[in-house]
Parts: sequence; structure tokens; C-alpha cells
Amino acid sequence: MGSDNLDGADNQQERLITTGWVVGFVDGEGCFSIGFVRQPDRHDRRGYRAGYQVFHRFVVTQGERSAACLRELQKFFGAGRIYVNRRHDNHKEDLHQFIVGRRDELLEQIVPFFRAYPLRTSKRDDFEKFATCLAMISAGDHLRVRGLIEIAEIAQTMNHRKPRQELIRILRDHTPDIRDTG
Amino acid sequence: MGSDNLDGADNQQERLITTGWVVGFVDGEGCFSIGFVRQPDRHDRRGYRAGYQVFHRFVVTQGERSAACLRELQKFFGAGRIYVNRRHDNHKEDLHQFIVGRRDELLEQIVPFFRAYPLRTSKRDDFEKFATCLAMISAGDHLRVRGLIEIAEIAQTMNHRKPRQELIRILRDHTPDIRDTG
Repeated sequence: MGSDNLDGADNQQERLITTGWVVGFVDGEGCFSIGFVRQPDRHDRRGYRAGYQVFHRFVVTQGERSAACLRELQKFFGAGRIYVNRRHDNHKEDLHQFIVGRRDELLEQIVPFFRAYPLRTSKRDDFEKFATCLAMISAGDHLRVRGLIEIAEIAQTMNHRKPRQELIRILRDHTPDIRDTG
Repeated sequence: MGSDNLDGADNQQERLITTGWVVGFVDGEGCFSIGFVRQPDRHDRRGYRAGYQVFHRFVVTQGERSAACLRELQKFFGAGRIYVNRRHDNHKEDLHQFIVGRRDELLEQIVPFFRAYPLRTSKRDDFEKFATCLAMISAGDHLRVRGLIEIAEIAQTMNHRKPRQELIRILRDHTPDIRDTG
């Protein structure tokens, strides 16, 4: 049986390797995304002020055979949920997704972790843009058309996305309501 | 300026994080593969004994923007080469590949590393099969039809590959030459 010191050192070593593993795995398989869903006023409820709901999520996708890793990520971050996307086509495996969508979890767990242990691929740029958008949303910028345009302009440069010119044009043409003049 | 001890501890910590990063990144982006190229006798040279050349390689692919990571992998393992696959289609980036194909580098650098620091996704199974095939090739099993069939049977279960029934059928139907009876 090892001494407590040795166990402590082993645990510390294992913890650092796991920390590095999470960064490397996310460099390979992670996705930080900012999306927009049109939510205008409807007969039964008032829509979003600027006409669009903005969502933010951090996602890692794996086939069923590697789903255990996603549960490890969930445990590691103490955040997020696991979703299963059943495949009824000719794919061989169901797809499992670890998704952190809640703003508090993103701000308190995910962003600080990747600030402390930076990504090493070009995904780091996507993460930084994601963190910028998240800070803007957190400050309520997305509730005004001007802020929403800024967020859309950043988001369109993430993840090899197609330009969101149409969304940005629609937003620019938007006649701001009275709350948008502040 | 930190003391030498502190620097030492920092370096050790950084080294462990990088070790974990390599494992995680390969879990996401790495590929271990065993392939077969038909090499029969030709007018100007004798072909491979069993009619097929077997190749083995460990590959990590990234877009140009993350090519620096591949150079880090090359430095980390002290093995492999970087290749660039220029894209002339509508892809946005050239593809860069870190490839370790040399048997000595695979046996001395790659296999021992992933034995010491195991992969955590289902890619670990592919790695173990790869290491098994590599050991068989190292022992010369691939020079006999019987061994080549065994290798092909393992290889067809790797990387979501399509079954290699045709290759295996051809090999089974192969009339062994005199060197194949030993």
C-alpha cells in the first residue's frame, strides 16, 4: 500500500492528465456555438424584444460506443446534460451529445476552465468569440437590435459558418420599438 | 523570478497537461489504420509474397489554421512527418496531416505512449487492434497468406470500416506459393 503522500501525488498527476485530456478532446470534438431563432410576437404571447432568441451552447458529440466519455465530461465540469439522438438511417451508432446550454453553467464552469487551460487549435478563437458573445448576452445586449447585430456579426465568423448576412440585413432593416432607443 | 523548484514543478505540471492533451486530441482526431495494396508480380519486379503490401499508419488531420498543433505532436513524439493536402475544391482550408508510418517509430514511440497513457474513447479498441496487427507484421506474419488473412480480419473491424470480405475471399482463394507452406 502506498503512503498517503504517494497517493496524493498520483491523484494530482492523474488530475493534471485528465485536465489536459479534456482540453485535447474538446480541441478535437467540441463545438462552441451561438444561434438565433426567430421569435416574433404571436397572438398568444409577446415575442423577444429584438425579434430573435439567441442561444448559446457548448457541445461534444460522440457515437454510442464512446458515450461513457461524455458522462465523464459531465462529471468533470459538474454541468451540462447528455442527450441521445437515435439514428434511424444507415448510421451505425446513435449519437450522444454532452450539451451545456445554461448561461450560469457556461459562465461559471466552462468559460473559466478554458481560460485557465487554453485550447491549442484554432478552436481557441471560436471559444474566445463565444465567451465575448456570452458576456454581451449576459449584459443584456441581445435585447436591443444594435447588440443583436454585433452578436450576429461575431457569430458568423465562428465554426466555419456560412455568413449570416440575411439575418444581419433583417436586423438592420428592423424598425426598433420604443425600448430599443435607450 | 521563481525558484528552480517552482519552475521544476511548473514544468512537470505543464508536461502532464500536455501528455493528457495529446491523449484527448488523439481520442478526438487520431486514426490508427491498417491498409492493403495489391502488389502482384510485375514484368520488372517481383511482387509481395502474399500478393499484398500491408501498410500501417497513425494519422492526425487538421485544417491549415491548426497546423501548428500537428508540429507540436511531431515534436512531442519525435516521430512522423507533416503532409499538406492542397484543396482545390470548395473547402476553405488545405488539410494538414501528421503521419507516422514507419514501423520503428510506431513500435518505439507511438505504441508505448498509448500503452502508458490509454485512450478513453472507443478509439482505444482501434489502437489495441492496430498494435496487435503491428506486432504480427513485425513478426513477419504478413508474408504468409494465412497471417495476411488474420491481419485483414482484424483490420476490417477497425474504424467503422466496411468489411473486407472481398480481400479476405481473394486471399483464401489464393494458391500459396512454395514459400507459403512453412
